[in-house]
Amino acid sequence: MLVVMKHGASAEEVQRVVEKIRELGYDARPIPGQQRTAIGLVGNDGRVDPSRLAALSGVKEIIHVTQPYKQVSREWKEEQTVVQLPGGIAIGGHDVVVIAGPCSVESEKQIVAAAHAVRTAGASMLRGGAFKPRTSPYSFQGLGEKGLKLLAKARDETGLLVVTEAMDPDGVDLVAEYADVIQIGARNMQNFSLLRRAGRSGKPVLLKRGIAATITELLLSAEYLLAEGNHDVILCERGVRGFDSATRNVFDITAIPLVRSLSHLPIVADPSHATGQRELVIPMARAAAAAGADGVMVEVHPKPEEALSDGMQSLDAEQFEQLMREIRAITDAIGRGVAEPLPAVSA
Amino acid sequence: MLVVMKHGASAEEVQRVVEKIRELGYDARPIPGQQRTAIGLVGNDGRVDPSRLAALSGVKEIIHVTQPYKQVSREWKEEQTVVQLPGGIAIGGHDVVVIAGPCSVESEKQIVAAAHAVRTAGASMLRGGAFKPRTSPYSFQGLGEKGLKLLAKARDETGLLVVTEAMDPDGVDLVAEYADVIQIGARNMQNFSLLRRAGRSGKPVLLKRGIAATITELLLSAEYLLAEGNHDVILCERGVRGFDSATRNVFDITAIPLVRSLSHLPIVADPSHATGQRELVIPMARAAAAAGADGVMVEVHPKPEEALSDGMQSLDAEQFEQLMREIRAITDAIGRGVAEPLPAVSA
Amino acid sequence: MLVVMKHGASAEEVQRVVEKIRELGYDARPIPGQQRTAIGLVGNDGRVDPSRLAALSGVKEIIHVTQPYKQVSREWKEEQTVVQLPGGIAIGGHDVVVIAGPCSVESEKQIVAAAHAVRTAGASMLRGGAFKPRTSPYSFQGLGEKGLKLLAKARDETGLLVVTEAMDPDGVDLVAEYADVIQIGARNMQNFSLLRRAGRSGKPVLLKRGIAATITELLLSAEYLLAEGNHDVILCERGVRGFDSATRNVFDITAIPLVRSLSHLPIVADPSHATGQRELVIPMARAAAAAGADGVMVEVHPKPEEALSDGMQSLDAEQFEQLMREIRAITDAIGRGVAEPLPAVSA
Amino acid sequence: MLVVMKHGASAEEVQRVVEKIRELGYDARPIPGQQRTAIGLVGNDGRVDPSRLAALSGVKEIIHVTQPYKQVSREWKEEQTVVQLPGGIAIGGHDVVVIAGPCSVESEKQIVAAAHAVRTAGASMLRGGAFKPRTSPYSFQGLGEKGLKLLAKARDETGLLVVTEAMDPDGVDLVAEYADVIQIGARNMQNFSLLRRAGRSGKPVLLKRGIAATITELLLSAEYLLAEGNHDVILCERGVRGFDSATRNVFDITAIPLVRSLSHLPIVADPSHATGQRELVIPMARAAAAAGADGVMVEVHPKPEEALSDGMQSLDAEQFEQLMREIRAITDAIGRGVAEPLPAVSA
Repeated sequence: MLVVMKHGASAEEVQRVVEKIRELGYDARPIPGQQRTAIGLVGNDGRVDPSRLAALSGVKEIIHVTQPYKQVSREWKEEQTVVQLPGGIAIGGHDVVVIAGPCSVESEKQIVAAAHAVRTAGASMLRGGAFKPRTSPYSFQGLGEKGLKLLAKARDETGLLVVTEAMDPDGVDLVAEYADVIQIGARNMQNFSLLRRAGRSGKPVLLKRGIAATITELLLSAEYLLAEGNHDVILCERGVRGFDSATRNVFDITAIPLVRSLSHLPIVADPSHATGQRELVIPMARAAAAAGADGVMVEVHPKPEEALSDGMQSLDAEQFEQLMREIRAITDAIGRGVAEPLPAVSA
Repeated sequence: MLVVMKHGASAEEVQRVVEKIRELGYDARPIPGQQRTAIGLVGNDGRVDPSRLAALSGVKEIIHVTQPYKQVSREWKEEQTVVQLPGGIAIGGHDVVVIAGPCSVESEKQIVAAAHAVRTAGASMLRGGAFKPRTSPYSFQGLGEKGLKLLAKARDETGLLVVTEAMDPDGVDLVAEYADVIQIGARNMQNFSLLRRAGRSGKPVLLKRGIAATITELLLSAEYLLAEGNHDVILCERGVRGFDSATRNVFDITAIPLVRSLSHLPIVADPSHATGQRELVIPMARAAAAAGADGVMVEVHPKPEEALSDGMQSLDAEQFEQLMREIRAITDAIGRGVAEPLPAVSA
Repeated sequence: MLVVMKHGASAEEVQRVVEKIRELGYDARPIPGQQRTAIGLVGNDGRVDPSRLAALSGVKEIIHVTQPYKQVSREWKEEQTVVQLPGGIAIGGHDVVVIAGPCSVESEKQIVAAAHAVRTAGASMLRGGAFKPRTSPYSFQGLGEKGLKLLAKARDETGLLVVTEAMDPDGVDLVAEYADVIQIGARNMQNFSLLRRAGRSGKPVLLKRGIAATITELLLSAEYLLAEGNHDVILCERGVRGFDSATRNVFDITAIPLVRSLSHLPIVADPSHATGQRELVIPMARAAAAAGADGVMVEVHPKPEEALSDGMQSLDAEQFEQLMREIRAITDAIGRGVAEPLPAVSA
Repeated sequence: MLVVMKHGASAEEVQRVVEKIRELGYDARPIPGQQRTAIGLVGNDGRVDPSRLAALSGVKEIIHVTQPYKQVSREWKEEQTVVQLPGGIAIGGHDVVVIAGPCSVESEKQIVAAAHAVRTAGASMLRGGAFKPRTSPYSFQGLGEKGLKLLAKARDETGLLVVTEAMDPDGVDLVAEYADVIQIGARNMQNFSLLRRAGRSGKPVLLKRGIAATITELLLSAEYLLAEGNHDVILCERGVRGFDSATRNVFDITAIPLVRSLSHLPIVADPSHATGQRELVIPMARAAAAAGADGVMVEVHPKPEEALSDGMQSLDAEQFEQLMREIRAITDAIGRGVAEPLPAVSA
């Protein structure tokens, strides 16, 4: 930690900072400059509270050298985390996992048809919302628990593992009953009550990056999960807010190799929400896989033109088959494979 | 609503859209252009689901002419909403309300000292967090219910009304017991479970704009509250995420007159979180008042250098007195006044 | 300057950085931490080239403590710069200067009518583009030198000083012949060939902030002008790019007090380009004045509905009169005044 | 074009817009809605000036259905443009072109060593700045014409084609004498005087996307080049400004398939400037190639730790060889190849 003094800070002000650092139990090392003095705090164990120094007279800013997160960092745990799911499917290992399905669960017919279609093309996991966080209170809000039951039925019929979103602490318990992975959506990335409950759920969590979250904030939200004892955390890049309305979001693919260098947690990519346009989903899924994503999550609807939400960015079955072929080609090129689906339980 | 077709869309594709619009019960009016055809949907009553059209073959995009929010709009209710608080304090009327206090409630001594200091200078409401949404799980998370009790004590001793944050549905009920206004923080602006519960709380709600929320999204989140029957909603501009690390956020003051033109709800401004720097708080509070804010919310700490959070952006008592003097001068200049504090209950 | 080493950097790598710093003629002060070591460079006189250190093995990043600009900073020159213009008008002193006029010079009739209207209401300077940087090659590009002559005629008839834009190095000489202040537009803020020529022009320069320029970048572009010997530089905040299409840009009013703390150069504000909507111009002009702007620059057109460019954000004469009244009220409230226009030359 | 009226616009105001549209020679088609009326302009040939309608009383906004660019669009020219360079190298065809070299030309020894290194690994074009746009006036500004001569020498010795930047209209002529492709840098994307001169230079132009330019703005800047008769235009995605300082910029790879759908012009990607970190360059080069980029442009320096600029993001020779191997694997996977370098002239 570096305490930067204002230009013209007095010797007394510098001395006060030095003393405060020593009071806190660390060593202080002043670095004089022509414009201003900075004071290095030596021996930071990550527990120094910067606000104690920031408000002292003459202090311009505090610069953090140490990352504020701990357990999620590569420096804490060097080997890559591989999240083990039922039946031997793993996220973060050699194989790239493809997660596909509709935006929302709409009916038994729709979710089962979608599940069969994506299973046939090679997906190993099914996505689909039962609880939908919608910007408008007047939009379709999901089928709730009924949707969770339909997802479980689709899993039984196809062998696909299920990932679906929980929107509040109570919902976590309900989703945990039915799903294989609990999703925390982008809007809830900093819903800390929700994170704490998900951290105690005993289920793997897929944590989506908030729409304007920095990588540090994403990792700190994951830290909430690990701090509660849940180490089965999968991060997800799904696009951040940008200035150009030509696409729904800016797909920050660089986050993939960056997260892999900073953290041991696996990271998957969602090109459907990131781009918002069906035509862009396939090339951007290729790009995400090429950048090193551990999984690709896409919206597929048996009849996109009848979808109750996100129809414009949903692939149909044929387009999804093309996506699978192209993802396989890319994973081959970089020495990885694509995870195979499990057999159906009820088959 | 306008359905824009792709360049080269066939006459059949155009016809299909026209028919779909008619199936939905509206009238369709094609607008041919040299590059592409657009089709106007006539008679939109706000209930058209765009995804039904967006996914049709040949459709390039859907352009919304009608705003997606209803009850919050000036078009729904033309006269300005004035939120009436206990003792006759009102937000949205002639007087600008000043809300001040520390970031967090830290102790009885601290919150009572802060309350007396801001009351003496002329604030009429006290802010202070008992439940703190913190980016890191290792930061001070607030005193919880004990903090709420201390806020209530400070109210009794000073007559200041209390606004404090609820972070989850269960917390809403607890905060509603103690506070005069329930705050929904920026990170929770799209926590829809929380919004719904706050909408049923029977207490006025201060809704902060999310860090990358558009004005439309802010108004739609407010719509969740009104849709549950709570019309006592106060919006708050507190800075949005920008590209320049020179300030903590970008204080989007233009949101103030813009919200006032689009909505009948009052809007206050928080220059402390928006700027993150003590030196900038006073000029930006002046600017917000000049732009037409119905209130100004600032962080004041009796001893900023000992604050457990946000010390760098907190004013001390003397600086807050200066702010009050300058706010009064600005409100005079624009024909408004500053709301006077109530007498202390225990006085 | 602080050189932050990667976690796991070897003692040899740290030593190599220390030696490199000494080779460059400075003193090195290592600051060990639990996660990583940082090395302070002591005695930085602003001439250290960070790339010499950044590329060394084991280096994670370079953190700058010293600002990269010099002559524009308050640390270089503490007293406020007041740019003296012909006839005694000054920018940066007690009085706020109002600059008004149409987006483009369109005809003699239009510019003279606009000049009379804004002069009558109390503006002291006339704006209007003769060379127009337009996003599309098919938009009206301005009248060129003929436009400059019309501006000079309007000045003769009204006494208003003229500010107008130069778009390329050759244009600087032409604009300098006719105008009192040369404007560098937002798109050219980092057109360094243009900045150098304007720095040698012998005329005051109004430098607009680029659409996504940080404050540091704005000040460094101003530094190009001062480095060429031109100290008569006026900065201008005109909105930065944001994520919400509800307004044309985000008006970053906080830049006004921030620039005033970092630099001695005056700063004016342009609410017309910042907001893009006529209804928002007046409240945001008030806000800018309240925040401490040294001038306000607005678009006024005698007949906005016939303007060849920017009609939507132009005020008509009556609206501009209202703006002047409100600006006067705000400047009174903060202890400043409004600069009075000069008498007409040809009167 | 759609003219959206304000809520509460009078029948007279609607009528006035209809008449104005007819005066301009088009047909008007009103679309009434419950909240507001919109008026479609039928038969837009791209020459309607929106400002003529935007400023009419009662108008809320103008919505553009027709793209503002023409010659650059796929709708104007459906087949992909392949820019033919000397010796048969082509950009926009089957093969992906790799352009590599140092940020700046520093010395004969440096540029010739760099050229040999990248030629050996398989690059077919050499990049290197002779004129450097630098944020600070105190940074190394390039060797100027001497740098151009050294680039020409490196070309003679290696057979690599040369791309280098021109910063002002006069510089275009000088660069055109020596280079095979003239680069317009990100800061100059909207330097329209420069674009016009480059449009008349008779040389292919590589146009970099501005740091906060929308795709529409990028294409309109390219339109300036085509409007001057230069059809040999190559676009370049090099990262846009974002809110997270974890990387230098946000690499907007989605721009690659998006530009390919909107325009017939080829597009290359620059992962060095986009990420700013050596470790991220290789994975992001893979991602760009997977997304469909027609070329990849990277910074390579024989000794990155001695580079006068951009040392932190430059690859060394060995890292560049790895990049070439991985790019080849990706282009194989998507059915493309990598362009082979030409034989040296002086060989």
